[in-house]
Amino acid sequence: MAMLLIKNIGMLATAKGNEPLRGPAQHEGVEIRRGCAVLLNGDTIQGVYDNASAPDCDNVIDAGGRLVTAGLIDAHTHLIFGGWRQHEVPLKLRGASYLEILQAGGGILNTLVATRNASEDELYDRAVSALSEMRDHGITTVEAKSGYGLDEQNELKQLRVIRRLKEEGGFNVVPTFMAAHAVPPEYKGDPDGYIEYVCTKILPKVADEELCEFVDVFCETGVFDVEQSRKMLTYGQAYGFKVKIHADEIDAIGGSKLAGEIGAVSAEHLIAIDEEGISSMAKGGTIACLLPGTSLYLNKEFAPARRMIEAGVPVAVCTDFNPGSCPSNDLQLCMNLGYLKYRMTPEEVLSAVTINAACAIGRGDSLGTVEPGKQADLVIWAAEDIDYLVYRMGTNKAKTVIVKGEIIK
Amino acid sequence: MAMLLIKNIGMLATAKGNEPLRGPAQHEGVEIRRGCAVLLNGDTIQGVYDNASAPDCDNVIDAGGRLVTAGLIDAHTHLIFGGWRQHEVPLKLRGASYLEILQAGGGILNTLVATRNASEDELYDRAVSALSEMRDHGITTVEAKSGYGLDEQNELKQLRVIRRLKEEGGFNVVPTFMAAHAVPPEYKGDPDGYIEYVCTKILPKVADEELCEFVDVFCETGVFDVEQSRKMLTYGQAYGFKVKIHADEIDAIGGSKLAGEIGAVSAEHLIAIDEEGISSMAKGGTIACLLPGTSLYLNKEFAPARRMIEAGVPVAVCTDFNPGSCPSNDLQLCMNLGYLKYRMTPEEVLSAVTINAACAIGRGDSLGTVEPGKQADLVIWAAEDIDYLVYRMGTNKAKTVIVKGEIIK
Repeated sequence: MAMLLIKNIGMLATAKGNEPLRGPAQHEGVEIRRGCAVLLNGDTIQGVYDNASAPDCDNVIDAGGRLVTAGLIDAHTHLIFGGWRQHEVPLKLRGASYLEILQAGGGILNTLVATRNASEDELYDRAVSALSEMRDHGITTVEAKSGYGLDEQNELKQLRVIRRLKEEGGFNVVPTFMAAHAVPPEYKGDPDGYIEYVCTKILPKVADEELCEFVDVFCETGVFDVEQSRKMLTYGQAYGFKVKIHADEIDAIGGSKLAGEIGAVSAEHLIAIDEEGISSMAKGGTIACLLPGTSLYLNKEFAPARRMIEAGVPVAVCTDFNPGSCPSNDLQLCMNLGYLKYRMTPEEVLSAVTINAACAIGRGDSLGTVEPGKQADLVIWAAEDIDYLVYRMGTNKAKTVIVKGEIIK
Repeated sequence: MAMLLIKNIGMLATAKGNEPLRGPAQHEGVEIRRGCAVLLNGDTIQGVYDNASAPDCDNVIDAGGRLVTAGLIDAHTHLIFGGWRQHEVPLKLRGASYLEILQAGGGILNTLVATRNASEDELYDRAVSALSEMRDHGITTVEAKSGYGLDEQNELKQLRVIRRLKEEGGFNVVPTFMAAHAVPPEYKGDPDGYIEYVCTKILPKVADEELCEFVDVFCETGVFDVEQSRKMLTYGQAYGFKVKIHADEIDAIGGSKLAGEIGAVSAEHLIAIDEEGISSMAKGGTIACLLPGTSLYLNKEFAPARRMIEAGVPVAVCTDFNPGSCPSNDLQLCMNLGYLKYRMTPEEVLSAVTINAACAIGRGDSLGTVEPGKQADLVIWAAEDIDYLVYRMGTNKAKTVIVKGEIIK
């Protein structure tokens, strides 16, 4: 494959290595290099040079003194779903409760029905549209969860769509099996029964077809309790999958504590996390996937990111893209919120959407930094520095996007 | 000029008439028409028809069943400025006060220096970039204030840039003279002296060159008090200009009350507005230009939009685009915040960025609705309905943008 030189980079901002950055290193581990060039060899980064010592190359992009970073990674999305839920807007404005919305055919049940009714082709086309939009914004790798099928046929359908996005669409997508996202109508009032069904009936088929890399569960009051969550994730681990857990979004019922104990790669949301949970995650090396867009959208508190960073929990920032609580796939906006609401530094925010996000989806060895040997996913920004990325809000700052060495924007 | 037919519109959502919508009419005055077509005659809207009865036309755009609205109007921006202020991010994260930031060369003084140092060409090019981005997002008309020059030469320079944006750039820009935006270093501690200078030295020149349509003033504790503001606006009115006032952003010192009394076309911010101010504005017919992006950016409260609507104050929603308190020119995000934070209905939000915004910049007779005789500024949205516009967050939903009958996206 061809060589490509990105020269005249004003600022190259990147972490180093394959491990998540935590504590003071989430800021200090980001290195700033000025006046440099990056050589790509096909889909791989070959080297980083000062402008003056950059090798000759037939294919050159002039970065024009702009900022370059690794491609952004969105480590938490519910990408595969049927329908949107804008019809709930008037209900919500009238102050309808979650239950009233459910009874009016809204909420997650609405998405469940729309996803079950959607063909694989429809779901695929919708996901391609969202992923294309994300690439256009510099998001080059995306985690995608199942969890709107909630039965064997439709969970497998969602995961097959994700596989097709990789194989046919050429997208960097990492699949997570999350049938334990809600209790479906067929198991109403019987979360134990549903978890048993998911663990013994669906999960083996997912494993047979090698359809996921992660297993996730929604541990929350009124959804799945800690023991049900532990069972789901233990089964997942027994099948050789890595695990994640939606924890402490509303109540700290023990999900984040479980995450650290069980060796979960990441825990998600964590708005209500307590000191015990933080301590367990720090000890277990679990990455916090924080979702500021959802806090904004639901008028909730923002997760205590600073407390987690100070306690040595590696923090990632993700969109939570889904049709209910965060109909936004704009990770750049989440970066703004990381600064404005989490009070994270630009360096911490950058780590959160590159190396830490890469590690949260098991890609620390190949993604998340600009270093020789890593995959050639890079963004040239309409920006001079990383401060600008977190400061300038609301419009797409990605100027040029390179995926596996190919200029796709 | 050529005729152009936009056919197969799934939903046309528009107010009617030339006056701002207030009270229940801000919602109810938005008419929804399905399955229709809009005929444009050059730069003017010719008529609206059912699909079946639409006239033949050589030039046709198929809206594909999508939503069509009038072009969005941003009725409050500080468009013309030198520099950005991302270097304040680390200072703000360390908890530096506004005063400390000022002392470090930051804050509005930084923008003052950068704007004074910038040539007319530089300011023009920067504004073209921002306006192009806004057009791409469906914002077809933009109000632009001076107020970063703060002396005769540089205030006139800013206003001349705005004139050039209209005459040379072809942008729909409405100029506001706002030298009374801050007290410049030359008049430190002497706001009375500065207002006298602005009123008697700069304003006459602005009038001579016909460089503005509106005069605005920042009425706030520590900036200009009510009497200074009254003087500025009274002088503005004496020169034949319409007036606006930045009021009650931090303290309700009487700015909104003055707005209603003096017949201001609009008052801006209004986060701290009290009942007396609301009542005065309702009585005076003053439009509230609310700036939710600034509340988000500064971690402030959101203005009491519902109370104003209920009291009969017409509400507009605008970006406040500026390099300090809201470095975002994304009016679509402000529409999301209008729903999420102001609890405005989709119809109210649409009125707020079309007819009410048009009236806030003196363009109710020509802009803000899709009706025969109005200027042919329209947006075809990647959306089925207006609920989707306020619901879907963070990415550009404008699919096709038409300005004066010309397809510019």
